Parts: sequence; structure tokens; C-alpha cells
Amino acid sequence: MNLRMISNLIGKILLIELIALAPPAAISLYYQETDALKAFLITMIVLAAVGFLLCSARPKVRAFYAAEGFVVTALSWLVISVFGALPFYLSGAIPSPVDAFFEVVSGFTTTGASILSDIEALPMGLLYWRSFTHWLGGMGVLVFLLAITSFGDGEGHSLHLLRAESPGPDVGKITPKLRQGALMLYVIYIALSVIEVIFLLCGGMPLFDSLCTMFGTAGTGGFSIKNASMAAYPSVYLQNVVTVFMALFGVNFSVFFLLLMRDFSQALRDEELRCYLGIMVGSIALITLNIHSQYQSWETALHHAAFQVSSIMTTTGYATVDFNNWPEFSRTILIILMFVGASAGSTGGGMKVSRLVICFKAAAKEISRMLHPKAVRVIRLNCKALDTRVIRRVNVFMTVYFFTVALSFLILSIDNFGMVTNFTAVVSCLNNIGPGLELVGPTGNYSHFSNLSKLILAVDMLLGRLEFFPLLILFSPSTWRRRKQPAVQ
Amino acid sequence: MNLRMISNLIGKILLIELIALAPPAAISLYYQETDALKAFLITMIVLAAVGFLLCSARPKVRAFYAAEGFVVTALSWLVISVFGALPFYLSGAIPSPVDAFFEVVSGFTTTGASILSDIEALPMGLLYWRSFTHWLGGMGVLVFLLAITSFGDGEGHSLHLLRAESPGPDVGKITPKLRQGALMLYVIYIALSVIEVIFLLCGGMPLFDSLCTMFGTAGTGGFSIKNASMAAYPSVYLQNVVTVFMALFGVNFSVFFLLLMRDFSQALRDEELRCYLGIMVGSIALITLNIHSQYQSWETALHHAAFQVSSIMTTTGYATVDFNNWPEFSRTILIILMFVGASAGSTGGGMKVSRLVICFKAAAKEISRMLHPKAVRVIRLNCKALDTRVIRRVNVFMTVYFFTVALSFLILSIDNFGMVTNFTAVVSCLNNIGPGLELVGPTGNYSHFSNLSKLILAVDMLLGRLEFFPLLILFSPSTWRRRKQPAVQ
Repeated sequence: MNLRMISNLIGKILLIELIALAPPAAISLYYQETDALKAFLITMIVLAAVGFLLCSARPKVRAFYAAEGFVVTALSWLVISVFGALPFYLSGAIPSPVDAFFEVVSGFTTTGASILSDIEALPMGLLYWRSFTHWLGGMGVLVFLLAITSFGDGEGHSLHLLRAESPGPDVGKITPKLRQGALMLYVIYIALSVIEVIFLLCGGMPLFDSLCTMFGTAGTGGFSIKNASMAAYPSVYLQNVVTVFMALFGVNFSVFFLLLMRDFSQALRDEELRCYLGIMVGSIALITLNIHSQYQSWETALHHAAFQVSSIMTTTGYATVDFNNWPEFSRTILIILMFVGASAGSTGGGMKVSRLVICFKAAAKEISRMLHPKAVRVIRLNCKALDTRVIRRVNVFMTVYFFTVALSFLILSIDNFGMVTNFTAVVSCLNNIGPGLELVGPTGNYSHFSNLSKLILAVDMLLGRLEFFPLLILFSPSTWRRRKQPAVQ
Repeated sequence: MNLRMISNLIGKILLIELIALAPPAAISLYYQETDALKAFLITMIVLAAVGFLLCSARPKVRAFYAAEGFVVTALSWLVISVFGALPFYLSGAIPSPVDAFFEVVSGFTTTGASILSDIEALPMGLLYWRSFTHWLGGMGVLVFLLAITSFGDGEGHSLHLLRAESPGPDVGKITPKLRQGALMLYVIYIALSVIEVIFLLCGGMPLFDSLCTMFGTAGTGGFSIKNASMAAYPSVYLQNVVTVFMALFGVNFSVFFLLLMRDFSQALRDEELRCYLGIMVGSIALITLNIHSQYQSWETALHHAAFQVSSIMTTTGYATVDFNNWPEFSRTILIILMFVGASAGSTGGGMKVSRLVICFKAAAKEISRMLHPKAVRVIRLNCKALDTRVIRRVNVFMTVYFFTVALSFLILSIDNFGMVTNFTAVVSCLNNIGPGLELVGPTGNYSHFSNLSKLILAVDMLLGRLEFFPLLILFSPSTWRRRKQPAVQ
């Protein structure tokens, strides 16, 4: 294990976090929020000290393998969460350290589950930081590091890091050069973010609200700065803007790249995109039919159905109505959408549409193989044959996924709340959504749970965001067993 | 598709059902239950007519492939359920045809889910037939056919049939000759059944009750002839006998075969057996700790925990207490056990312990492969390397399994009952258990659901018992596409 290289990279990540804390500190300064400002400054000093210390470790060898990639990813997400929680804890805004950690993990992993019952009581600086963690976590901090720095020694490092942090069954390189690819992802991400803010400003939303709402949408996070979430902005126009942008940020970014390259036909033929939109439109139609009697008009029903489906399927978690009060059929559709999730290579969570497509194709192939044992069949996605490694890893993902659901569900049940609360809390956190049903519904929050349950849910959020493998490898004993130092590549 | 061969086999299955109806008819005659007797006789006449008609189709070619095996299995389970429902419907005991079909499918698939609210009102003959369907379905009707008839042309047919009907990831042949193997399975099955009846008679249970209780235990079905299930027999001895025999019938029968062959060391080294017992003992311990405050003594708590865990994990479904009133932690353990299920090659349902073991080993292997991409590793079960085909099929099983849960859960939600009721109803039926929680808990039943939901649950029971593939292949269009008639093997 190349520890010097790992410490160097984590140091850099901490310095990025330091820079990210400057704007919220400035906001606290502007609004004269003394406690919050002090907390931000202490955190920044600590980050600077630890960051520069770690960076000072100059790697002797540049050997960097998959194991290092996974370990760096897992560790950096853990440390940015711990340091990111400091402003909340030190300012006294969230007195319990477990709660502060839960809230920030929920931010970075773009979950949006909150332990706060009165969000609007937070100082402006902290509100901004809370929402900004979504934006940072959405595309990934390591991808950001890749985009702005050069390792100068081929693609080895970058590929391992990108693989470990990016959601979806496998990273298709969008450009031949990985650094260019990472840069391109951030360019698209920033461009879409700016466009959304402009649309929100046009609808009369204040700048601060527009920025925070955009952070939540772009990262598919869902932290709102209002207790009533998006229902606090009753303008149908504003809600529709958010509906559309949530759906856009749930699309695989390589589709946007193809559109930028004016390769429209290939972009629109993308199988995952078609399934993603198909499931979304189908769910909106079914829910509209099911809930229309609860609303004054079909348009209102359609409006709320579209917002909630877009929010849950992209794993954002904003709400315009309390869908906990919808009929069982609509609630069940939302639960199933929580599992499905958004597209691979988007900022959304969940199992990802492409994984499900691969699972189905593998099942269909196997059944046909039972009938015609000698026929040779290849599983294709977007006309390309899939590597068996990808299929195997999808299967292992599913195993670990359901095992995690079962274990977390069991541990949460010790708190003795209802089964629907526990189950939807786990599903919501693991898939990085935010709200669940019953106690953790859109109008509820996660403050009821014991510290043990909150920590389990925080781990679930990290497992879901990093798609299990980095954390499993970090805590797997075989990773840390002494092995022969490999030769420089 | 060799249709003549298929029709011939199904004809034979119907004649077996005809013979199986004789004892309940005799019981109805003895107790002078006119309506029931009439219903039995009409059913038997119909079965004789249809059975002999189908048998008269003499196969011209003896070609019999995997496709034929799956189709025969799926069709024969569907037809015995339809004919088996006739006595309930014709006697007026269950006036709705959908309800009668649900009840009999629940019997044959050894689920034990009932739409009856007053079981004790049924005539004795029908009570006997209802319980006896468990015993028949437990080991499988086709396995019975294999045990008593000879195809006289090698192992081809028999293997396809045995594979299609037997639970578990793959059928290990227990003897070199398949027919001997099928016979041996039934010998062990009958021996264990007789021993259980003797133990029950020793505890003072009447003969009729002992037989019916044994049918439910041996098939891991769970239909009781009492409204209060096993709580109607308050004797601790009787309940303990059932606890032990439920656990025994959830063990892979090849372990009993090894014991018969006096190969004790290999039997006790069986990985699935160890996991099965480990999970069972662990769950009993946790539940005892959790519920002991609800009972007078630790012994009583242990007694009820052991009974319920044994009942749910083996997917039997008998109950001595209403576990719906247990704390959330114990309820959650039971829900998770519903998914786990019993051992492969037993009469129990669920995912099967060995499938989970295989999934875990595949996951561990993949994670180690991420760290050491060049290391070659083989997945072993009981020291034997597993074929990749087995692993692939386990993965496809999981995919189809969770898709079935999601779709059934969605359709049931149209009835607008609670989420816990719907979810546990689906899980309970798909895993062939019987009771769920809330409305379908141990003291509830399935009569509330709409006909659509009942049919979906009946299909789930069949899918669960036959482990998906036979029914999927029966309804897959590619099975019925015209193909070149293959040469005689």
C-alpha cells in the first residue's frame, strides 16, 4: 500500500475543502453570524494544518493500483465528512457530534436526509455550506481533483480514482484522455448549474435561494433551506424548473457530451436513457391517475406527480406535497423508484437503470440458454458486447446491496419504530434519496433515531454513494496484509 | 416440443391425483359428509376421464429435452391445482372459484396461506385433502412419478424433470441412478413422516390430527386443522415435537442420505447444514432475549422463539403465538428469515441457504479479484469447485426473485391496505411460508384481498415453489416457436 501517495492525495482533498469553506465563511461574515464565523475559521485553520501536513508526504514510488484508488476514495470521503461536520458542531447549531456527522454525510453523499426539525433557524453561512456539500459530492471531489491537477504519469492513477468514485456499473471513457474527461464532466455540470440558476432567478427566486436550490438539484441531494422544502415556493413555474432540472441531472453525463459533440442520433439511441425516461413517464402517468381525486384538477395532479417522481427517481428528495398521504399504490410506486434510481454516470443514486437493464438481459439470456444450451449469446448494451467482468460485478453489487438493506433494517428495528419507517429510512439513505415514509416522510426527519441507528444510516449513505466497493476494500483485512512492494509501472 | 410425451406425463400425474383423492373421499363417506363426498366423486370421475384421455397419447418419438422438462413441470402443477380445487368449490365449502384455487395452490406449493376464517367448519374429508396437498407438494409429484415408474431409456427425461421440480441451486445426484435417487428421497420422506406421527400419538394427539399436523410439517406447508394453529395443542411436548420436525424437514435430504450411509463426517461437514443451523440458533437466541419480558419465564420465551423461528425459516408457517405482537426487532428477524428460507433439496421454500452462501462467496471472490486482478480463484461449496453455470443461474434467480417481489407488491397496493400487509403477503407467498404480518398475520387470513391480488399471490406461490424457471419457460414465446424436430437421442 503506497501510504505516502494516499496521504498526499487526501491532503489535497482537504485543501479543496478548505477553499470550499471560504464562501460560506464570507456569508457568515456579511450577516454578522459570530458563532458560525468562528466555527468556520477554526475548521479552516485545522484543515490548513492537517492538509499541508499530509501533502508534505512526497511519494517515493509512484506505484498506484486499484487497491490504492479504492482506499483513497473511501478515506477521503470519510475525512471530508468529519471536517465538514465541524462548523455545525463548533457553532452549536447542531449540538450532538453524531447528528452533525449524519447531516454532513447526508450532504456530501447527496442524500438530503436531515436530523433538523427547524432548518430555517440555521445561520445563513451554515445553510449555504449544508447545500454546497451536495454540489461538491454530486460530481465527486476526486473527479474534481482529477480535473484540476495532472499526475503526469499516464492514466493509471486517474482511472483507478475515477472508477472508484463514479457511480454506475462501469466507467466508459468519454474522451480518450481521462483528465480531459473529468474536466468535461465538470464543464457540463457547471454549465447546467448556471442555466438552472438563471431560470430560477427569472421566476423571481432570490439569489441565495436560487443557489442553494440549484446545489440540491445538481447534486440530486435535496437539502432545502426551507422547512416546507419546495412547497415553500408555491410558484408552479419554479417547481417545474426544478422538476426538469432534477430529471436532467439524473441523465448519464456522457449523453450530454454526445449532444455537445452534435452526435444526436447516438445520444437518443442510448438504451439507459430510453429506459430511464420510459420508467419516469410511466410512473408519472400511473400516479396522476391514482391521485387525481385528491387534487382540484388533472393539471395539479400531473404537476405534483411529475415533481415527486422526478425527485424520488433521481434520488433528489425535494417535495412539493406530503406524498406520505397519497394512496398506497402511489406510495408503492415511489418505494420501487427509490430502488431503481437514476442513470449511471449521473449525480443520482440508487441501483441505476443500466444495472437493472444488465440484470434483465442476463436473465433473458440465461432462460434462452436453458432452452438452447448450445447457442452462444452475448449481452449487449448500446450495441456493444458487455465484458463478463461487468456482469459479474453487477451481480456482486446486488448481493452486497440486499445484504446491506437487510442488516441495516435489522439494526434499526432495535429502536422499535414501525416497519415502514425503518425500511424506508434504510432504502432512502442507501439510495441517497432523503425522505422516506411515515416518521421519515417529507414532513418528518431522522432525529427520532438512536445514535447507533444514525451512524448505521450514515454508513449506508456512504456505501450507497461510493457503491460499496471502496469502503468494503478499506475495511477488508486482505487490503492491509503486507505484500511485496510492486515494481514501478 | 414433444406434445404427445407431455400429454402422456400429465395424464399420469392426474391419475396419481385421482388415487390421492381416495382417502379423503373415504373419510367423507365415513363421516357421512354428503356434499363433500359428492364433490370428491365428481372430481375423481373427471380426473379419470381426462387422465386416461391424456395418457392415451402414445409418444411417437421419445425426444425429451430441458424445455419439455420445464413445460411438463409447470403444466402439471397448474392442472393438479385446478382439479384439486374442485372438491372445495363443488361442495360449496369455498363458494368462490378464485378462493378455492388460491387455497389449493397454497396447499400444493406448501405455502399454507388461507382465505378461510373458520377452518374448523370444513368437513373432515376436505380438511384431510387440504392438509394432504402439502405432503404431496412437499417432495413433488413428478419426483413421485419418477420414483414409481421407469422411462426405460436412460437418464435424460428423469434428470430434466428432477431438475425442474427440485428446489435449490442445483440437483446433486444422491445416487448414480436417478430413479433410485427419487425413490430414496421418498423413502426418507415417508420414514420421517411416520416417525413424527408416532411421536405425536405418544403425546396424546388424536390420529386424524396427528396425520394432518404431520402433512403440514413434512411438506413445510403449515395448514392446520385448527383456527388457532398449533396453539390449539397447548402441550409443550407436542409443540416441541413439531419444532424439531419442522427443522428436520428443512434440512437437505442428501444429508439424511449420507447419515443413512453412515458417512457421518461428510454429513456434518456440509456447509449449508452448518449455516442453516447457525442462522436458526442465532435467531432463536436473539428473539428469546428480545421477547422474554413478554413471557412468564425464559423457558417459555425460548420455547415460543424456537417454534416460530423453526416454523418461519423452514417456511412452514405454523404458529403457537401471535408474533405480530412481538417487538419490532423480533418481527424484523422473522421477515429476514422469510427471505432466507430452508436448505436446498429439502421440502422448504425461500431463497435457500446454499444460494445465499454462493452469493457471498462470489462477492468475496470478486472483491479479492479487485485487489489482485491476476489471482485465479475458484468458488467452492463443500470442497467442490462450483460450475460457473450454477453461479450464473443463482444470480438470475435473484434478479427474477426481486423483480417478482416488486411487481407483486405494486399490484397488491391497488387494494389500498397497509404497506406491511402487502409486503409481507408477497414475501410470505413467494417464499411458501403462509402467515405474514398485520392483516395477514398468524391470526389473520388472505380473504381481504381482491381476486386480482389473490391470483397474483397464487402465481407467486407457484413461482416460488418451482423456482421461477418452469413457469417462465412455459410462458416464454421462444419455447413455442416452431423448431426442427430434433433427432432421437
